[in-house]
Amino acid sequence: MSDVIDVADPADPRLDDFRDLNSVDRRPDLPTGKGLVIAEGVLVAQRMLASRFVPRALMGTDRRLEELRANLSGVPAPYYRVSADVMAEVVGFHLNRGVLASASRAPELSVAEVLDHARTVAVLEGVNDHENLGSIFRNAAGLGVDAVVFGTGCADPLYRRAVRVSMGHALLVPYAWARTWPADLELLRDRGFRLLAMTPAPTSRTLAEAMGDVGDAPVAILVGAEGPGLTEHTMRAADARVRIPMARGTDSLNVATAAALAFYERARFLA
Amino acid sequence: MSDVIDVADPADPRLDDFRDLNSVDRRPDLPTGKGLVIAEGVLVAQRMLASRFVPRALMGTDRRLEELRANLSGVPAPYYRVSADVMAEVVGFHLNRGVLASASRAPELSVAEVLDHARTVAVLEGVNDHENLGSIFRNAAGLGVDAVVFGTGCADPLYRRAVRVSMGHALLVPYAWARTWPADLELLRDRGFRLLAMTPAPTSRTLAEAMGDVGDAPVAILVGAEGPGLTEHTMRAADARVRIPMARGTDSLNVATAAALAFYERARFLA
Repeated sequence: MSDVIDVADPADPRLDDFRDLNSVDRRPDLPTGKGLVIAEGVLVAQRMLASRFVPRALMGTDRRLEELRANLSGVPAPYYRVSADVMAEVVGFHLNRGVLASASRAPELSVAEVLDHARTVAVLEGVNDHENLGSIFRNAAGLGVDAVVFGTGCADPLYRRAVRVSMGHALLVPYAWARTWPADLELLRDRGFRLLAMTPAPTSRTLAEAMGDVGDAPVAILVGAEGPGLTEHTMRAADARVRIPMARGTDSLNVATAAALAFYERARFLA
Repeated sequence: MSDVIDVADPADPRLDDFRDLNSVDRRPDLPTGKGLVIAEGVLVAQRMLASRFVPRALMGTDRRLEELRANLSGVPAPYYRVSADVMAEVVGFHLNRGVLASASRAPELSVAEVLDHARTVAVLEGVNDHENLGSIFRNAAGLGVDAVVFGTGCADPLYRRAVRVSMGHALLVPYAWARTWPADLELLRDRGFRLLAMTPAPTSRTLAEAMGDVGDAPVAILVGAEGPGLTEHTMRAADARVRIPMARGTDSLNVATAAALAFYERARFLA
């Protein structure tokens, strides 16, 4: 069980993992700085404690401590018990979730590692918005996607906002960065994955058609950023181009929503 | 064609429709104040110009004027041409979309009006987040939903943020507020709509089963706020309870994402 340590002084250096969370240049989750992973709220903290990320410390109110107590057994990281006012002063704003947890970054996984036992993976290119990235992780977890592979131009899934929007699933769904892109797509093909590239192009197969073609074979769903979409280079490396059937006069959906529809259609063939 | 009027003084009262857009108490889109509808950016302004909302004025840079010129023919509202600096001073922050349009609120439609010719409607209860509301309109437009009906507790779809996130579709997809809730659901039932209530309850029908049951009959998809979901009272007024098949260890999806999956599954039976 975490040691529970009462802290009344917001300047106490033991709280530094959580200091200035919104600061442009000092925030602790900046990859160029401390590079910590920060979980906000009981649910996300619970997921962090269940993840491969090793917790360093927690800071929260007494009430949140009670809610988390069962999850803290066997956890060596201390719980700094503070008032809401101290918390706001440390963090730099009022945080109504009442508890934060910090963890060190875990070693990066390789693409080969995350593909082990995976049957459905999401492959992202140019998804540089933390909120969209977080949503994709949440959708992946909810709809049965086994892993996420990052091509070029993606944002950091461990950034605080991404972790929060993912509801902590960015810490649980295995992910890996491609080393060479899009050449690493061959790693997926070698393992029998069918590569489906999402596009609004009306000449492409519908999601339902494409997933029906694939059946229950392993599948990789390639998604590009909202707006530009996948690069042509990456499109050409895919086995098929697939689209969401859209109503007339509309253009596209949010990238995380589009991904969710693909994940949902895929799950139909695995049920 | 809009009169193009150059304005160099940020204090010019003709720009008041766009003043202090982020102000807590003076912003022009506050329903308790001027209650204007504000469109941001070329695409959303185009959709406003194509909507039932009558434009009052536009304010933007010369570059955006050129992009909008074709849409401004026959539009009596003036285009106040300003520099980016003047624009920032009026609005109160730097707005990189380069153009804004204002419109008066159009008369509210009745539930009966929006149901005319509709075969798929979304019915929302307690969706009080402007971003989720905007996303639901975007998803509704993209996936062929004909109208939106609001029960109690929903946010204002004409709030600036909702309009922006909807990509302007909050101005195009017809919507109406129920007068008595959930009694007004009878208006839908009288028109032959099957009422499907979304819930995470594992005992309910899956989306695919429920939409298959409905076939191409008119359908209303009832969605509650993330977290609480639909009230039990509203659930009981529905014909069936439906769920998204979720992966183990996950709870729920974002409300707009959940709605998108229902809209998508519905569209399968209308193709």
